[in-house]
Amino acid sequence: MRKGEMTRAAIIDSALELASRKGLEGLTIGSLAENVKMSKSGVFAHFGSREDLQIEVLKRYGFLFEQEVFLPALREPRGLPRLRAMLNGWVSRVNREIATGCIFISGAVEYDDRPGPIRDKLLEMVETWQAALQRCVEQSIAQGHLSADTDARQVVFEIYGLVLALNHDARFMKRPNSTERAQNGFERILRDFAQSGSEPETKQIT
Amino acid sequence: MRKGEMTRAAIIDSALELASRKGLEGLTIGSLAENVKMSKSGVFAHFGSREDLQIEVLKRYGFLFEQEVFLPALREPRGLPRLRAMLNGWVSRVNREIATGCIFISGAVEYDDRPGPIRDKLLEMVETWQAALQRCVEQSIAQGHLSADTDARQVVFEIYGLVLALNHDARFMKRPNSTERAQNGFERILRDFAQSGSEPETKQIT
Repeated sequence: MRKGEMTRAAIIDSALELASRKGLEGLTIGSLAENVKMSKSGVFAHFGSREDLQIEVLKRYGFLFEQEVFLPALREPRGLPRLRAMLNGWVSRVNREIATGCIFISGAVEYDDRPGPIRDKLLEMVETWQAALQRCVEQSIAQGHLSADTDARQVVFEIYGLVLALNHDARFMKRPNSTERAQNGFERILRDFAQSGSEPETKQIT
Repeated sequence: MRKGEMTRAAIIDSALELASRKGLEGLTIGSLAENVKMSKSGVFAHFGSREDLQIEVLKRYGFLFEQEVFLPALREPRGLPRLRAMLNGWVSRVNREIATGCIFISGAVEYDDRPGPIRDKLLEMVETWQAALQRCVEQSIAQGHLSADTDARQVVFEIYGLVLALNHDARFMKRPNSTERAQNGFERILRDFAQSGSEPETKQIT
């Protein structure tokens, strides 16, 4: 990377850290400039506008999410082992973000009625993630790990709800055991939609 | 009501409408004064501060929620009929709020790391609502509608997750059928916990 690219990447990382705490709308060029010890015009030189910066932050968040949650799960066998790996990775990530905040979740509330390019990008990313989960559920059906009449979208809806509840109870309500509650919920869903006895031995991800 | 009280009530209603759309933090005395066609100082005369106004808005929201969701459910017999009435009332309310936003849900994200009296009040209200749901689940166990070993907090956690998913998918993602998905989820939870007793050991996914 050339020096300009390195500076740009460092600014984006710092902006991501700020946006995780204050929300994407709370991300100001002023506070960012202070964080990276640059002038406001220095920060502006790397991005056309605040909105461009916010979109770069979203892309960076999506990249890290993919690296940390999605790609490692692809190394697991298709079906329930891979679905479990995705859920594990996701729950780990949300747990590490309890102190700061998950941009997919907080962003959905920030931008639910704020149309524009940031909302569009965020929506595209959440749709991509839900589609990946759905594909994984469909493969679990194809492998016979879940019963043939499983409504894959329904499974994704309920799984998403458990992660939203984990974020809500742990972050807003400071309730202990929220992770175990989410995991119990996953297991109940998988048991309900499973064909008995067809589940393979699960290789655990570490 | 005296004239002063009527004016105050009208200001709170208008503030609630604004806060539902813009968030409690988006509620400014300026926009509120414009909405109710008063001067800023006229609005201030009725409330000590912006924070006092925000707390009054929360209380008003809680009052309406209780009137609309909680009290009608108390007319149903204890146990599952009452629990179903609470869920139906809640889902109806969230559905009517799709265009604006539910303050319990958006507020939890706005105030998850913003300590102070508003967060305290909101948290107290959400805790009260979760406690009411939990009591209702416990009565369902006592009535024999749910199995004796049901973990009532777990049921509330999962139910809350379904309503968060409904709000997320319908409001942010504009997905159709989200209400049906939430209701399918409720029915599956109630079916599961009606039977269990012999529920298998929960496997941890980590």
